[in-house]
Amino acid sequence: MPEIILSINAGSSSVKISVYKTPEDTSSLVPVQLAEATVEGLTAPPAKLKYERGDEKIKGKELENVKSQEDGFRYILDHLTNDKGLPELNKKEDIHFTCHRVVHGGDYPRSQVIDKETYFHIEELSDLAPLHNAPALTIVRAVADILPHARNIAYFDSAFHTTLPDYICTYPIDQEIAQKNKLRKYGFHGISYSFIANAVSTYLRKPADQLNIIALHLGSGASACCVKGGKSFDTSMGLTPLAGLPGATRSGSIDPSLMFHYTHSAGKPSHRSSEKMHITQAEEILNKNSGWKSLTGTTDFGKISSSDRHEDRLAFNIFVDRILNYVGPYFTKLDGEVDALVFAGGIGEKGDKLRQAVVQGVRCLGFAIDEKKNGTAIEDVVTDISSGNAKYKTLVVQTDEQLEMARGVLADKDRFVGKK
Amino acid sequence: MPEIILSINAGSSSVKISVYKTPEDTSSLVPVQLAEATVEGLTAPPAKLKYERGDEKIKGKELENVKSQEDGFRYILDHLTNDKGLPELNKKEDIHFTCHRVVHGGDYPRSQVIDKETYFHIEELSDLAPLHNAPALTIVRAVADILPHARNIAYFDSAFHTTLPDYICTYPIDQEIAQKNKLRKYGFHGISYSFIANAVSTYLRKPADQLNIIALHLGSGASACCVKGGKSFDTSMGLTPLAGLPGATRSGSIDPSLMFHYTHSAGKPSHRSSEKMHITQAEEILNKNSGWKSLTGTTDFGKISSSDRHEDRLAFNIFVDRILNYVGPYFTKLDGEVDALVFAGGIGEKGDKLRQAVVQGVRCLGFAIDEKKNGTAIEDVVTDISSGNAKYKTLVVQTDEQLEMARGVLADKDRFVGKK
Repeated sequence: MPEIILSINAGSSSVKISVYKTPEDTSSLVPVQLAEATVEGLTAPPAKLKYERGDEKIKGKELENVKSQEDGFRYILDHLTNDKGLPELNKKEDIHFTCHRVVHGGDYPRSQVIDKETYFHIEELSDLAPLHNAPALTIVRAVADILPHARNIAYFDSAFHTTLPDYICTYPIDQEIAQKNKLRKYGFHGISYSFIANAVSTYLRKPADQLNIIALHLGSGASACCVKGGKSFDTSMGLTPLAGLPGATRSGSIDPSLMFHYTHSAGKPSHRSSEKMHITQAEEILNKNSGWKSLTGTTDFGKISSSDRHEDRLAFNIFVDRILNYVGPYFTKLDGEVDALVFAGGIGEKGDKLRQAVVQGVRCLGFAIDEKKNGTAIEDVVTDISSGNAKYKTLVVQTDEQLEMARGVLADKDRFVGKK
Repeated sequence: MPEIILSINAGSSSVKISVYKTPEDTSSLVPVQLAEATVEGLTAPPAKLKYERGDEKIKGKELENVKSQEDGFRYILDHLTNDKGLPELNKKEDIHFTCHRVVHGGDYPRSQVIDKETYFHIEELSDLAPLHNAPALTIVRAVADILPHARNIAYFDSAFHTTLPDYICTYPIDQEIAQKNKLRKYGFHGISYSFIANAVSTYLRKPADQLNIIALHLGSGASACCVKGGKSFDTSMGLTPLAGLPGATRSGSIDPSLMFHYTHSAGKPSHRSSEKMHITQAEEILNKNSGWKSLTGTTDFGKISSSDRHEDRLAFNIFVDRILNYVGPYFTKLDGEVDALVFAGGIGEKGDKLRQAVVQGVRCLGFAIDEKKNGTAIEDVVTDISSGNAKYKTLVVQTDEQLEMARGVLADKDRFVGKK
């Protein structure tokens, strides 16, 4: 009997759930997608539903009284169990596994079944990235309540990067405090990088453990990763997702002393802080009130890319420049043995102008794209947009964190079922 | 009649003064060095004198009651006027110009005669980098008192970088606050980069305004600079010297949220703070208690380089890795049109093992060094250590900020004398 897997990705204002069933062929590691549901706009009500099952599509359906991640989860669950076109999922008890994307997993090198002990540990870790882990933890608690029979599994964005060399993940600061307070480079977007590495390895027919790529996950949160021999060798994010590239509302790396010249209350608690969640004003400002929104007024990078206003061009050029600050060093860290430069994430997939500018910026290394291929909408999981005379490939990957988590269930089922 | 120029470089625990006279040939822009004096150990008494004039050398002479930058300056001045071998400088009135290295010069694009107005402005700017500007300002005040007839001129480490493009010097943060609080990338070590660019231009017989180099000033404070067409195009330091590469006691760039997880009092005033000088605990920790000292216990990078202890190798590898994070992007920002990779500063000049590791790290770009040349002590202003088959040159430059300032006096004399 096929089993149902829910892959849940909770952001600060949305909950996205992909529904899979296990494949007929029990040796296959490819889950079968049945449906996908998203509740968006939780912080700007009314929330709206987006739903897709086969050819059936719902978009923009306004929802009353859906105001939290938990509301969103309950709404989607009702919708799924009541959808006559989804006979595999008639009742809550049909759900065997729920996968949760958790941003900060500390030292966890792989996914974990969430029991009391792991939940407590994840909650503890979340002090390092409260803005990022909080939505996932809300859902984890709700799911444990609503689906007590299902196995809750946490997938960590940091897990892919536990292979960073010590000299890359160590900050040159007091080492006693660093160890006590767990201060090191963790890196994030790892579920996506894992998907990207697998997809590119399959596409290039190269064993995953020999794959060398420079991967760029570019969305409203953006990062870069140097994948060497299939493993994360360096990445742009740090102790938290704030370091590295700027994003829609995030500054990325800045002078570490800047915030003390920005406001005298940098270290004081922000209005979001609670007894359980410690967020300073500095962290709130740099994560939520910076990035290209602070430069242009919009979080929509598509708009920025196609505008000629001074502030939009500035934001575009800043993003390209900061991305280039990672491509060059990752190229040399791979000693020029590079299988591909890979663009992924919303902006990576749709931003042809951005891709063009980045590749132009590293043309002296041997990258070049075909304008026509680059200008065509991306449809496949992996698309080669390199020009014929390029020394190195440039690829676009439609990354799928949900699918990567569901695949993990098939690959690690024995480990998950053995536990609990 | 030749005129006497003092070039003064005041650090937190030392004062270094080079004495020059203007050349006989008034069309020459090369000042003649007469002597050099350093008082060291101001923060670890007894302070010690180092003095060189021709073949005469004093080293390690312990000084009583010399405890501040002003004490140090007065001591050196007495020593110079009483040195019978220095007939050009018999009395204070013989000194025509004093040059002061000032770290943070805000928007000043060039050196400035220090009058009341400029002094006040420099003092105001120093709020951005109080730890760095304070020693120079102490000396400026003392010199104005002691040598009222001399022209005091400020040379700014930031001035060379006023050519940074807007998309490189703008931080993606609230732009109103950025403008009000003058928050942008300034960059430092500019007096040194100016010297380096001139020296390499002369050595390669290439016009200065066509010179493209990747310059590394590596000392207890370290930075990188991309010089494009003779001008600073990008640099690793930021709003303050804290950003970018780590140093002896400086962390360099870290996750901007790290300090709030390091201590709950990150934003509170440090013990050095006074009504006139605002320094947070975070800035104190990251500037004074971090870097390779926090990893190894020593600030001596020579010791670290030659040790096999785990923590020394870690510190060495961290420094190499962070340097490589700048060489790659600067190479692509110059579109591969690179005249030379240049090492300078104490570690750049003496650290053959470090140079070897850095150049090895970018060998795929076409850099290579000759082991023998690299292993030989540097004697000339510019030394080529590239191997015969290297595509790009690697040079070592003995940078001289004192000389660069004194040269500036000859070049800009009309501007300085017209003023005041």
